[in-house]
Amino acid sequence: MRHATAGTGPHVLREINRDLVLRILRSAEDPPRVIDLSQATGLSRPAVMRALADLGGAGLVESLDPADVAAPRIGRPAQRARFRAELGHVVGVDVGPHKILVKVADLAGRVVATRRLDVSDRTGGAEILAAAGDAIAGGIADVRTGAAACAPWAITVASPGLVSTGRGDVRLTPSMPGWAGLPIVDVLRERFDCPVLLEHDVTLSLVGERWLGVARDVDSAVFVQWGERIGASILINGVPYRGAHVAAGELGFLDVGTAGSGDTPLAAGGVGPFERLVGAQAILTLARAMSAADAGGALHRTLSLAGPDSGLPALFAAAAAGDPTATAIVDTVAHRFARGLAPLILLVDPQRVIIGGGVSRAGAPLLDAVRAAVAGRVLETPEITLSPLGEESVALGAVRHALDSVEDRLRV
Amino acid sequence: MRHATAGTGPHVLREINRDLVLRILRSAEDPPRVIDLSQATGLSRPAVMRALADLGGAGLVESLDPADVAAPRIGRPAQRARFRAELGHVVGVDVGPHKILVKVADLAGRVVATRRLDVSDRTGGAEILAAAGDAIAGGIADVRTGAAACAPWAITVASPGLVSTGRGDVRLTPSMPGWAGLPIVDVLRERFDCPVLLEHDVTLSLVGERWLGVARDVDSAVFVQWGERIGASILINGVPYRGAHVAAGELGFLDVGTAGSGDTPLAAGGVGPFERLVGAQAILTLARAMSAADAGGALHRTLSLAGPDSGLPALFAAAAAGDPTATAIVDTVAHRFARGLAPLILLVDPQRVIIGGGVSRAGAPLLDAVRAAVAGRVLETPEITLSPLGEESVALGAVRHALDSVEDRLRV
Repeated sequence: MRHATAGTGPHVLREINRDLVLRILRSAEDPPRVIDLSQATGLSRPAVMRALADLGGAGLVESLDPADVAAPRIGRPAQRARFRAELGHVVGVDVGPHKILVKVADLAGRVVATRRLDVSDRTGGAEILAAAGDAIAGGIADVRTGAAACAPWAITVASPGLVSTGRGDVRLTPSMPGWAGLPIVDVLRERFDCPVLLEHDVTLSLVGERWLGVARDVDSAVFVQWGERIGASILINGVPYRGAHVAAGELGFLDVGTAGSGDTPLAAGGVGPFERLVGAQAILTLARAMSAADAGGALHRTLSLAGPDSGLPALFAAAAAGDPTATAIVDTVAHRFARGLAPLILLVDPQRVIIGGGVSRAGAPLLDAVRAAVAGRVLETPEITLSPLGEESVALGAVRHALDSVEDRLRV
Repeated sequence: MRHATAGTGPHVLREINRDLVLRILRSAEDPPRVIDLSQATGLSRPAVMRALADLGGAGLVESLDPADVAAPRIGRPAQRARFRAELGHVVGVDVGPHKILVKVADLAGRVVATRRLDVSDRTGGAEILAAAGDAIAGGIADVRTGAAACAPWAITVASPGLVSTGRGDVRLTPSMPGWAGLPIVDVLRERFDCPVLLEHDVTLSLVGERWLGVARDVDSAVFVQWGERIGASILINGVPYRGAHVAAGELGFLDVGTAGSGDTPLAAGGVGPFERLVGAQAILTLARAMSAADAGGALHRTLSLAGPDSGLPALFAAAAAGDPTATAIVDTVAHRFARGLAPLILLVDPQRVIIGGGVSRAGAPLLDAVRAAVAGRVLETPEITLSPLGEESVALGAVRHALDSVEDRLRV
């Protein structure tokens, strides 16, 4: 709904009706008939027709010849209306220390192009920013149907660290040297001549889960990103909660009393105490140590040779197959993780906890162990589940965020 | 503002104008003149006069003879209007394991009666509930001006534990045996024949601080109750945040890794791990142990004889006077407290942290030590301050809560 206008009267009603009809058209799987629109909006048939005429005049909607529509025919085929989702595109970009993932979607939110780029070998923030720009350009090129090179309607960039959404840069990203302080928004806006937005990656994961994943039906949830880095985002009343300094959910920096001293310095090398306890790298280190008793065993040999990318899947596969050492490791990992998850649950009291990130690919054995480990540490136990979107959630959330930002341009 | 009415037109405008004028009158220190009301509301003089006539007809407002008003006189004295705050009363009740505090306020929020009752010797929840009822009746009796015994317009009861605001009882109060499960709201509603509301005490502390204390100017804050029990309430967008199961802010149950094992059982005797680490009783135990090296010293002798009520003031007075042992104890306490406060700050990212409860009476030495101990554990440091309302904050918050609930009865 737009802000209060100078007066009230028929033209305001007509505007509201257009918005209603357009919203239904944009979310419809198949092009609806006038009667469908009338039922979905509660508007009269003439009011729907008027709205369709206005939307058609603005180029947002087109009428379909009944012959074009593959729909069951009973009686005279009715005319259908279609939102012209191809009118423009938005781009969601997930930028991380290891990969860049670009998704281009039409105005109905259908992803029409995806680009993925490994940037593990890039040495600095500026190089990563240039690579992100190239990946965006590539994604846009993939969807150009004619000769005309159209700028996207909006680009949302997802970044780790403490993000300044207002200034358009990042204040702190220990995982990406040289990224903090770069004028990310300015550089990309210059290159693509369209609005560019910057948002925290874990927040966008939650937006993605709320759009297409397991947060669709709840207004209160927490998303925990569990990889080498650990972070959380919090959904309150259906809206991501950012905190007074856009720094809420910094789970990775919790000190849950490791090694008995409890006085761990905040961030040795920019990695938080909880990340040092149970991030992907810490899990691998722990697994190597715990499996060393059987130094000739298959598990230890596999883990000795592997990095986190292949080591953790091997560990979790062994646990799923019932290997007792692997099972003990997973149990220890779950108990360590619960020591950080419990404070989050005790303080925020979410209805649902969604665990995403690379470690969440461990699947059921880890999830079950985490549920058991958390149960004894909280007063109210939320549902705990794994992210179905996996590592796509950030880029999809960025697409949704960009789509939300162009809503105003879809008003007639 | 009330909900949408069936139509729009002059009568709706007139209603809105009445609400505006009444709101100004209710919050005014001195009875305003018509011109003051016109300036404060933006309404024309005739519109203000019409609103005053309506409000006067309903008995909510009275006109004051200029001679009754002590105001500077320049020119002809203007008539003034006054909200009849004495029309009714509301009651805020803070019920805890040791004391019951009742505050009765008029409809402008001025506290006109206070009753305080020690209930440390009461043996069960039912007995405490009966005592609370008697204290409320006493407070109401104090403000009866005529012969008529009028029921209060609303009573808000503040309780520790997990409060079911809907059911009107408490699910879990380890600190008050027999209190959980009592039909608190039903019993008091029966006795006082008025609406009775139940709310979590720490939430109401925050409401009190937002009304009259140090949260007046912020929309994002955390209130930490620090006594024998430890709890927190969270202000988001100016509204207390309760969580999906009305269980947010359970700081006292955080396990911050005491004694190296980190696997403390959740609640031995219903007291949370963080409360066992740094609640009032734990501080006294720590102080006795740390001062034992100088067993003949004044500090150790004082602490050995004292309970938390007198021992902690003695400890903090010694620290304020520069006693090195007391200073070291305060420093240790602050570091332990920071281990729980840091997760709260890292996860919620509030603009301001307000520390209340008995321990907060320690004042500046402890506050300074807490600020220093927190600084190395968080990414964004909020303002950290002490509650100016102290142990009054809960009852005052309950008064504000009850006042909010009677807003609808003030509509003409």
